[in-house]
Amino acid sequence: MAKVRVQVLHGPNLNLLGTRDPAVYGTTTLAEIDAELARRAKDRGVELRSAQTNLEGELVELIQQAKPWASAIVINPGGYTHTSVAIRDAIDAVGLPTVEVHLSNLHAREPFRQVSVTAAKCIGQICGFGAQSYYLGLDAALAHVESTQRHGQKRQRRR
Amino acid sequence: MAKVRVQVLHGPNLNLLGTRDPAVYGTTTLAEIDAELARRAKDRGVELRSAQTNLEGELVELIQQAKPWASAIVINPGGYTHTSVAIRDAIDAVGLPTVEVHLSNLHAREPFRQVSVTAAKCIGQICGFGAQSYYLGLDAALAHVESTQRHGQKRQRRR
Amino acid sequence: MAKVRVQVLHGPNLNLLGTRDPAVYGTTTLAEIDAELARRAKDRGVELRSAQTNLEGELVELIQQAKPWASAIVINPGGYTHTSVAIRDAIDAVGLPTVEVHLSNLHAREPFRQVSVTAAKCIGQICGFGAQSYYLGLDAALAHVESTQRHGQKRQRRR
Amino acid sequence: MAKVRVQVLHGPNLNLLGTRDPAVYGTTTLAEIDAELARRAKDRGVELRSAQTNLEGELVELIQQAKPWASAIVINPGGYTHTSVAIRDAIDAVGLPTVEVHLSNLHAREPFRQVSVTAAKCIGQICGFGAQSYYLGLDAALAHVESTQRHGQKRQRRR
Amino acid sequence: MAKVRVQVLHGPNLNLLGTRDPAVYGTTTLAEIDAELARRAKDRGVELRSAQTNLEGELVELIQQAKPWASAIVINPGGYTHTSVAIRDAIDAVGLPTVEVHLSNLHAREPFRQVSVTAAKCIGQICGFGAQSYYLGLDAALAHVESTQRHGQKRQRRR
Amino acid sequence: MAKVRVQVLHGPNLNLLGTRDPAVYGTTTLAEIDAELARRAKDRGVELRSAQTNLEGELVELIQQAKPWASAIVINPGGYTHTSVAIRDAIDAVGLPTVEVHLSNLHAREPFRQVSVTAAKCIGQICGFGAQSYYLGLDAALAHVESTQRHGQKRQRRR
Amino acid sequence: MAKVRVQVLHGPNLNLLGTRDPAVYGTTTLAEIDAELARRAKDRGVELRSAQTNLEGELVELIQQAKPWASAIVINPGGYTHTSVAIRDAIDAVGLPTVEVHLSNLHAREPFRQVSVTAAKCIGQICGFGAQSYYLGLDAALAHVESTQRHGQKRQRRR
Amino acid sequence: MAKVRVQVLHGPNLNLLGTRDPAVYGTTTLAEIDAELARRAKDRGVELRSAQTNLEGELVELIQQAKPWASAIVINPGGYTHTSVAIRDAIDAVGLPTVEVHLSNLHAREPFRQVSVTAAKCIGQICGFGAQSYYLGLDAALAHVESTQRHGQKRQRRR
Amino acid sequence: MAKVRVQVLHGPNLNLLGTRDPAVYGTTTLAEIDAELARRAKDRGVELRSAQTNLEGELVELIQQAKPWASAIVINPGGYTHTSVAIRDAIDAVGLPTVEVHLSNLHAREPFRQVSVTAAKCIGQICGFGAQSYYLGLDAALAHVESTQRHGQKRQRRR
Amino acid sequence: MAKVRVQVLHGPNLNLLGTRDPAVYGTTTLAEIDAELARRAKDRGVELRSAQTNLEGELVELIQQAKPWASAIVINPGGYTHTSVAIRDAIDAVGLPTVEVHLSNLHAREPFRQVSVTAAKCIGQICGFGAQSYYLGLDAALAHVESTQRHGQKRQRRR
Amino acid sequence: MAKVRVQVLHGPNLNLLGTRDPAVYGTTTLAEIDAELARRAKDRGVELRSAQTNLEGELVELIQQAKPWASAIVINPGGYTHTSVAIRDAIDAVGLPTVEVHLSNLHAREPFRQVSVTAAKCIGQICGFGAQSYYLGLDAALAHVESTQRHGQKRQRRR
Amino acid sequence: MAKVRVQVLHGPNLNLLGTRDPAVYGTTTLAEIDAELARRAKDRGVELRSAQTNLEGELVELIQQAKPWASAIVINPGGYTHTSVAIRDAIDAVGLPTVEVHLSNLHAREPFRQVSVTAAKCIGQICGFGAQSYYLGLDAALAHVESTQRHGQKRQRRR
Repeated sequence: MAKVRVQVLHGPNLNLLGTRDPAVYGTTTLAEIDAELARRAKDRGVELRSAQTNLEGELVELIQQAKPWASAIVINPGGYTHTSVAIRDAIDAVGLPTVEVHLSNLHAREPFRQVSVTAAKCIGQICGFGAQSYYLGLDAALAHVESTQRHGQKRQRRR
Repeated sequence: MAKVRVQVLHGPNLNLLGTRDPAVYGTTTLAEIDAELARRAKDRGVELRSAQTNLEGELVELIQQAKPWASAIVINPGGYTHTSVAIRDAIDAVGLPTVEVHLSNLHAREPFRQVSVTAAKCIGQICGFGAQSYYLGLDAALAHVESTQRHGQKRQRRR
Repeated sequence: MAKVRVQVLHGPNLNLLGTRDPAVYGTTTLAEIDAELARRAKDRGVELRSAQTNLEGELVELIQQAKPWASAIVINPGGYTHTSVAIRDAIDAVGLPTVEVHLSNLHAREPFRQVSVTAAKCIGQICGFGAQSYYLGLDAALAHVESTQRHGQKRQRRR
Repeated sequence: MAKVRVQVLHGPNLNLLGTRDPAVYGTTTLAEIDAELARRAKDRGVELRSAQTNLEGELVELIQQAKPWASAIVINPGGYTHTSVAIRDAIDAVGLPTVEVHLSNLHAREPFRQVSVTAAKCIGQICGFGAQSYYLGLDAALAHVESTQRHGQKRQRRR
Repeated sequence: MAKVRVQVLHGPNLNLLGTRDPAVYGTTTLAEIDAELARRAKDRGVELRSAQTNLEGELVELIQQAKPWASAIVINPGGYTHTSVAIRDAIDAVGLPTVEVHLSNLHAREPFRQVSVTAAKCIGQICGFGAQSYYLGLDAALAHVESTQRHGQKRQRRR
Repeated sequence: MAKVRVQVLHGPNLNLLGTRDPAVYGTTTLAEIDAELARRAKDRGVELRSAQTNLEGELVELIQQAKPWASAIVINPGGYTHTSVAIRDAIDAVGLPTVEVHLSNLHAREPFRQVSVTAAKCIGQICGFGAQSYYLGLDAALAHVESTQRHGQKRQRRR
Repeated sequence: MAKVRVQVLHGPNLNLLGTRDPAVYGTTTLAEIDAELARRAKDRGVELRSAQTNLEGELVELIQQAKPWASAIVINPGGYTHTSVAIRDAIDAVGLPTVEVHLSNLHAREPFRQVSVTAAKCIGQICGFGAQSYYLGLDAALAHVESTQRHGQKRQRRR
Repeated sequence: MAKVRVQVLHGPNLNLLGTRDPAVYGTTTLAEIDAELARRAKDRGVELRSAQTNLEGELVELIQQAKPWASAIVINPGGYTHTSVAIRDAIDAVGLPTVEVHLSNLHAREPFRQVSVTAAKCIGQICGFGAQSYYLGLDAALAHVESTQRHGQKRQRRR
Repeated sequence: MAKVRVQVLHGPNLNLLGTRDPAVYGTTTLAEIDAELARRAKDRGVELRSAQTNLEGELVELIQQAKPWASAIVINPGGYTHTSVAIRDAIDAVGLPTVEVHLSNLHAREPFRQVSVTAAKCIGQICGFGAQSYYLGLDAALAHVESTQRHGQKRQRRR
Repeated sequence: MAKVRVQVLHGPNLNLLGTRDPAVYGTTTLAEIDAELARRAKDRGVELRSAQTNLEGELVELIQQAKPWASAIVINPGGYTHTSVAIRDAIDAVGLPTVEVHLSNLHAREPFRQVSVTAAKCIGQICGFGAQSYYLGLDAALAHVESTQRHGQKRQRRR
Repeated sequence: MAKVRVQVLHGPNLNLLGTRDPAVYGTTTLAEIDAELARRAKDRGVELRSAQTNLEGELVELIQQAKPWASAIVINPGGYTHTSVAIRDAIDAVGLPTVEVHLSNLHAREPFRQVSVTAAKCIGQICGFGAQSYYLGLDAALAHVESTQRHGQKRQRRR
Repeated sequence: MAKVRVQVLHGPNLNLLGTRDPAVYGTTTLAEIDAELARRAKDRGVELRSAQTNLEGELVELIQQAKPWASAIVINPGGYTHTSVAIRDAIDAVGLPTVEVHLSNLHAREPFRQVSVTAAKCIGQICGFGAQSYYLGLDAALAHVESTQRHGQKRQRRR
């Protein structure tokens, strides 16, 4: 069975994690999350890469660059979640199974945060569990990839 | 540390699981999901109960009855997700940490499925991973309860 | 003059009264409210019955069953207030003068609580006074019935 | 050719038929409608069962229970027509050809009655003809079943 | 009892019936539908005329011209259903009982097809049963006319 | 215990009461309502003042002037209910417990009457009971003031 | 036949007429319009009074004061046209036939000027003809009053 | 001074005038209105032509044909008022001063009648005065033409 | 390879081209555009026919009549673009590749011009280039037909 | 260079400043703000007048009265900001450069406070800086007037 | 006559062309499109430069940099079309004639793709013709530039 | 007292200032504004840095980088004002007092410019005064910082 590889992508302001409004986002830093993700991936024999950017267009490019390497993407598009057709199109175009994660519960915040432009092109969405959202997102991505490999066929992305 | 107990609640039509539109909902039956949840809970020394109902008001009552027993709730409110103020109020009133799960990716279906009336009173929401959504939901609930117990204080529900 | 009879109906989650979010709903229990209503009714020579249910359809049936017995209804449809065409139709169909009451001030909460589907078929609505809303509702219902009897004609419900 | 069986389902407040607002709903009672439907079914060699409930969740269950027995469903979801995702999902899940009927002309009443959440998962909708809506609905269902049987293939429900 | 006469009116593009998108509209031609309607009318001793036009204003005129002759109208306004105030006004002005029919289930198509500007001035609407919609529409119109004649009074159109 | 004082404020067109559309507003005049309010206040040892104005800005000033004198306000803002941010701000600024009353059932009239800009800054709202709305409003205000005095603390206005 | 009397009412900023944006409102002053109206009224044996105010509440009072004297009102509510429920209620309450006039063509300006809260309670509306709108409004009011007197019955205001 | 010529255009269903819903539209026939308009035009030395059509496209053509002949247009676009971009464009393209008239008070009817697509390209709009709306419309058109001629310059249409 | 034939269709008011608002639509007449289209078609060995009509229903019929003759349609539906379901249905029903063109840039005009009801059933849309829009439309249609013929298969219309 | 004169206008409830909700509006009183404005004006050789009113119509009149005297207006329309077409029209009609100021940050409060009906006719808007908003507003007005005088031409108001 | 120069700009994800969803976007790569554009430009003696970027802000800068060099821009803003005020402002600010092109028919896809924020500041828009959209866009730009040069005046951009 | 430092941030297209549409934005260049800001800051003993970028994500990063250095931010987010959740989140996360400025009066332009996504997380907003908006913004920021330092406590940002 092919080596499984996961690309983790962090969107705008996530580099501030642990310093920003801890009541909403917790005190864990992004480096700590990436370390924990790396540890969990290693335990399961999975390769994992992480990247953060504050630029919408760079998220588009990171998604495109994941194409030849990754089996799946775990992405937190941050503030671009609610408006970015470009990221939606990138996820759709590269066709990798993608899991959207958010630290906070979008449904309990400003109304505009309840609309996700990007989630429709992902397998699913996980929100509200702080750093746990990433770990659950990794589990979801891996379960999806394993299930697809087991069935010997690329499970079609749901649109 | 107190015994952890999780109440799993399945809403309308979930009793049909495995027979209904497998392209959208998969072939796993509800009994299989409940068995897998029970197995996972047992592995982690957690008590778990499951119940399914097609009635909105009975979901309200099952949430109320979980109050004195459960440490957390994992709920799939099914079609009531999008309109039920009564279930929202019940989750809010009993004050148990609650995780909302959905089999399908609500963001990739009819527009009315993207609004969740109930999720704002939950810790978070997981959707799109088929039966995995439940297993991730159990993990999310347990991680939340453990974190709360570790900090020796009831972590406040996010509203 | 005919004996006056009032049916009091409590909707979903009102059985939790006194335990739920006291800052919003106060500390009085439903049993205490029912006892006070009974005491006030008795003082005025009025028969009074109370019932609570968490099921929308049972509220519909309780309204229907009030028809042959009651002179008026005092109802708190709880979370069903904002969506239930079935309860609206039941109030309209039985044709009894009905007073809608709410413990909290709906106008000061989430936007969706400001729309009442049911109130248009009631005589009027009272909200925001905690347990007092029920007592004022009883007074309103009795004043209405007495005025109707005095004028020797069924005062038409306003639509 | 297989015996044809039709399940008729009446939603909330339809038990009041003939007593409620005759200017809108006519004077025929539900028992009379069921008797006439039975007579017509018998004339055509068709089995017919009727049921009425005021509970949304029981409508869901009656639809589910029709699955192994019925060739088609004729349903009047009453006030649940305009909000019930659960009934919509049930109709979709059991996959029986379903005809939605309404006594009154929904297009000539309150604006909220013009949206049907359930009709999209039915074959079609008939409204405005009083008790006749049911008889026409039975004809529509039978014509559909016969046409399907004639073509020796389950005609796909239109979505 | 006066001779019953029914005017059938077909709106834009219905002349293409049988050639247009058979998956949605079936393979029956308009001539076949008109022939079947004529046969059914004759069987019941009813006069029936049919006309088709692609022009909104000609539908207005055909409705006006039906006034002195017809007992009822069966109309499929096609694409004009969703915007034509002129046809709505014509139906309202001539005051003949009118049944609106559609081949396809409007509720299962584009959102703009779920609004009918014309149906509010008709007795009722039937949609989704292919050519059967016309036959059911004829039955509905005749049942209405017979019921009106039996009660010896022009049954008022519902608005 | 401090002397309780209530300021009653009547908005635009209420000076016409008893002459305007009696089917909607009843035949009682404003003078009769004020007399009855005065009588009821006197019976309970409460001081009461009434004022009517047709000017939005004068309502603002009457609310401001009530500040140093009154324990509570009972207000019917009439047509300004649905648009006046200035009255909302005045109620909010003076901080007196305020009860909003309306003669007619706003929920059964034009859609624009169902939005109250002012009610969110009041304790609650009472509508639909004709002159009784004022008497119930007085009772609600007094019950609120008494409850606040009993608890020896200014009960916080709900926002 | 009774003496005909017309009350002309000018709303906010109309006192600036002739000085304000002549490209939109023309160069005629309000005094000139009132003089021309007086001349035309006198020619037809009609009494006419004019008043201008910048205060919404004073327009309400001027409408109320017209009641015992006037046969009809010609009103330009200016900027209050688009929001004033109080003026709408005043027109409705006094029950005098009222003609709404506007100097500019509301349909060719900002979108918010196309909604008139007040016109629904008037006989009709005339807009776009500069000072002529007033003269046409006077003609419309007189034609209405004469027609009503001729038919010896108060023609009911249209709602 | 050039001879003044006015083209009067009647839209759909106006040929039914006097027969249609007299409570809303009065008992005067279209022929009577045209005769009265002709009489008034003749009295003022003005040429006047009238035409009625039920077809939107024919209204477009009648507007175009008025161009070389008429000084002004008085038009009642009937049901096309609320949707016809084609008529709006025709009025705009020919550039003749145009007065829009309506028999009924559009502001007091269904909400969709309050939007006029065509009025923005006219000088102004007159509605609610029955047949008088036409006579006032003629006066408005003539006053406009005379004022333009007096100022020796084509007064620009207001957009 | 089959002879290529293109039907050009001009909607309402396009017969006025060159006379109407030259700042928006230019000074070229429709005859000049048709001549230029004919010249270009001839150069490429393509048959071309043009037709103009101001009637929505005639556009429907012209589309239908193109079916047996044309390889493609170039259409400017003018003011009907924004509302005509009938034209949309006609384009959809005949199934010919259709290019929608507009002289002006719809995105830079009134908001209602930005919605095209018809474009969704065309291959694509070209707007803003004056007469050039037609010439580009012809090029687009021909490129599409040639590409389809080259691939020896009817390229499916995009919906 | 002409003497510069500034009219400061305070709208409803601003007389309560310093007593009302200090967390939102600060503790400075209106008298203190007026004194500081006067001091600053004097320092710059500018005449300054202040006025406060709770009445919308009086704000209209104060704006009109500023016309012959003032070089500019600094206005806080308070609660009328969000609805007053009359104030908008007054600012537009007198044509004086006007600066709109608000103590609180409107963008961080209720959604309805983010729409300003009046600001479109002002030079600009300043909000969120407490009493400083007025001082900045004075600076903005003076800078505008000086710039206009320097260029020896009335700078056109932006619409 | 000055040398004509065209800047072609490709927005986000267009670098994936030929690999992404060929059913929607075709199999031609971006390099092939650029080569074809270059060939066509060369044939017509026109200079042409192409650039692609996935970053919104870089599109802004590429538009700005085109200013001193280019005679016109052909741009496909991709997913930024529907939200980017910054790109709209850039097109507006540099003032070069700009043609917006899209490969797919935006009107046949998700509703949010039918709104173009950028097109209002372009000459026009071409969508739906795959790679042909670019070639038609080049033709449109060149025709525009030539026409402008012929008339010896910078044709004003339409807003 | 600590040295005060202000970071000035200019968003997209502001580098074009003085060249772009002077009627709307004036003729001052960005360099001139920065020079004037620097001069004013120096006069008051304040350090000031300026930066401009056309990239949304770089604005996010510039805001983040201001954190350890600046006492306050003056920002003109340009076209990103109306959509950027990422910039809103950055302002919120770094927690520096931020003043939003705009050259033009947003309330007098396209409707979409009246919504600011970013302003809710700033202290306040200043718009409409051309280059003066920046100078007033600097004053506002300094007044805020001084007031905060004087009170010896970080004044809480208003949300």
